Amino acid sequence: MAQLTLVIGNKNYSSWSLRPWLAMKQFGLEFHEIRIPLYGSDSSSKTRQYSPSGKVPVLLHDTLTVWDSLAICEYLAETFPTLQWWPKDKTARAFARSITAEMHSGFQNLRQNMPMNCRTKYPGKGLGSGVQQDIDRIISIWKESRQKFGNTGNFLFGDFTIADAFFAPVVLRFVAYDVQLDANSRDYVEIILALNAMQEWINAAKNETEILPQYEF
Amino acid sequence: MAQLTLVIGNKNYSSWSLRPWLAMKQFGLEFHEIRIPLYGSDSSSKTRQYSPSGKVPVLLHDTLTVWDSLAICEYLAETFPTLQWWPKDKTARAFARSITAEMHSGFQNLRQNMPMNCRTKYPGKGLGSGVQQDIDRIISIWKESRQKFGNTGNFLFGDFTIADAFFAPVVLRFVAYDVQLDANSRDYVEIILALNAMQEWINAAKNETEILPQYEF
Ligand SMILES: N[C@@H](CCC(=O)N[C@@H](CS)C(=O)NCC(=O)O)C(=O)O
Ligand SMILES: N[C@@H](CCC(=O)N[C@@H](CS)C(=O)NCC(=O)O)C(=O)O
Repeated sequence: MAQLTLVIGNKNYSSWSLRPWLAMKQFGLEFHEIRIPLYGSDSSSKTRQYSPSGKVPVLLHDTLTVWDSLAICEYLAETFPTLQWWPKDKTARAFARSITAEMHSGFQNLRQNMPMNCRTKYPGKGLGSGVQQDIDRIISIWKESRQKFGNTGNFLFGDFTIADAFFAPVVLRFVAYDVQLDANSRDYVEIILALNAMQEWINAAKNETEILPQYEF
Repeated sequence: MAQLTLVIGNKNYSSWSLRPWLAMKQFGLEFHEIRIPLYGSDSSSKTRQYSPSGKVPVLLHDTLTVWDSLAICEYLAETFPTLQWWPKDKTARAFARSITAEMHSGFQNLRQNMPMNCRTKYPGKGLGSGVQQDIDRIISIWKESRQKFGNTGNFLFGDFTIADAFFAPVVLRFVAYDVQLDANSRDYVEIILALNAMQEWINAAKNETEILPQYEF
């Protein structure tokens, strides 16, 4: 099998990188990792060596380059079809794709005001009415997914799927900013945090030395 | 076959609605259309009757609700697999998914400063350095797609695919703001504009009476 390489940013800050990284870990794919710290003097030129968009994450597979976290995950789902990347049931899968695509293009308020940060806690920072609306929507997504489709396991659709990978950065935001949650969301946060792969990511983030002031309060 | 219903916003303004609408037209699917004018006093309550995210577009199919333009298109690709929604070739398909997902989550500067508008022209408005960067990236995407994968036809990957549907709102922005383009992009703009379905959309937009001042200069 051709080698898989995932190019990512700083583990502490790069929320988009976490998504395919976590999915690949959860589905047991072996891959080589290239980390490019973001917003340094040579970050852009290094990223452009791999990434046509100038952004991370990027997946290199054989002669192929796939960029953007969602395209990477759909590519993996297609390339390794024996693994259950999306829910098997058609209705659940449509729901999973809907919330994943909604996450991919939305939640600007949350993204901008509560940047992902694995190693520092800023309780209460960043909160405002737009952010609270985003939080409320996520709480309601998590509740509906788990109630309707999650009976067979702990994740949004029972077993771990791409949808969980897409909401993992949000889990870290909720922890960093100590966001008030309902019981279902608190439980889901614990489930995601307890994953070995998440612990591995968080520990690596804590050992990183770069500090990006624009993402700190 | 179960009835397909697509819930959309104003044709003049709703760029996200155009994507699945155009894809469904191009692939010859019959569907019922529900139009909900955006940002009126009852828009939100009407939209929420159909849409869990409170946004359009939404696809209703049988007992199923799929929202978000990208999830809708992936759902259609899965549900009508004899139609060639994505390029057949694996490398081309990975490229198509990458640029589609990049469009789905990016280009905020362009989106915010050059809102889609089918019936009014605002030459030169909205331009700034961030917007120009977005424009340059789109020009380079169109060039690379057509050069590498587009030899068999006029579209980004030869035949029309979901990727073209995702860039169609950008075509309308480039026209409305009279954006300076290279020869390849000018040609591509003409190809998209000439589609019967695009003409149908634009004519319907011109006949709409709602004016949203936040999207006019
Ligand atoms: N839609 C893209 C977004 C990628 C993105 O914005 N990545 C950030 C880091 S988390 C980046 O590379 N920023 C560097 C830059 O914009 O120069 C994806 O899902 O992969
Ligand atoms: N990511 C969504 C975005 C949908 C979206 O933002 N739709 C706008 C209209 S173009 C909307 O419904 N706005 C109404 C609102 O936000 O209240 C998609 O791709 O469908």
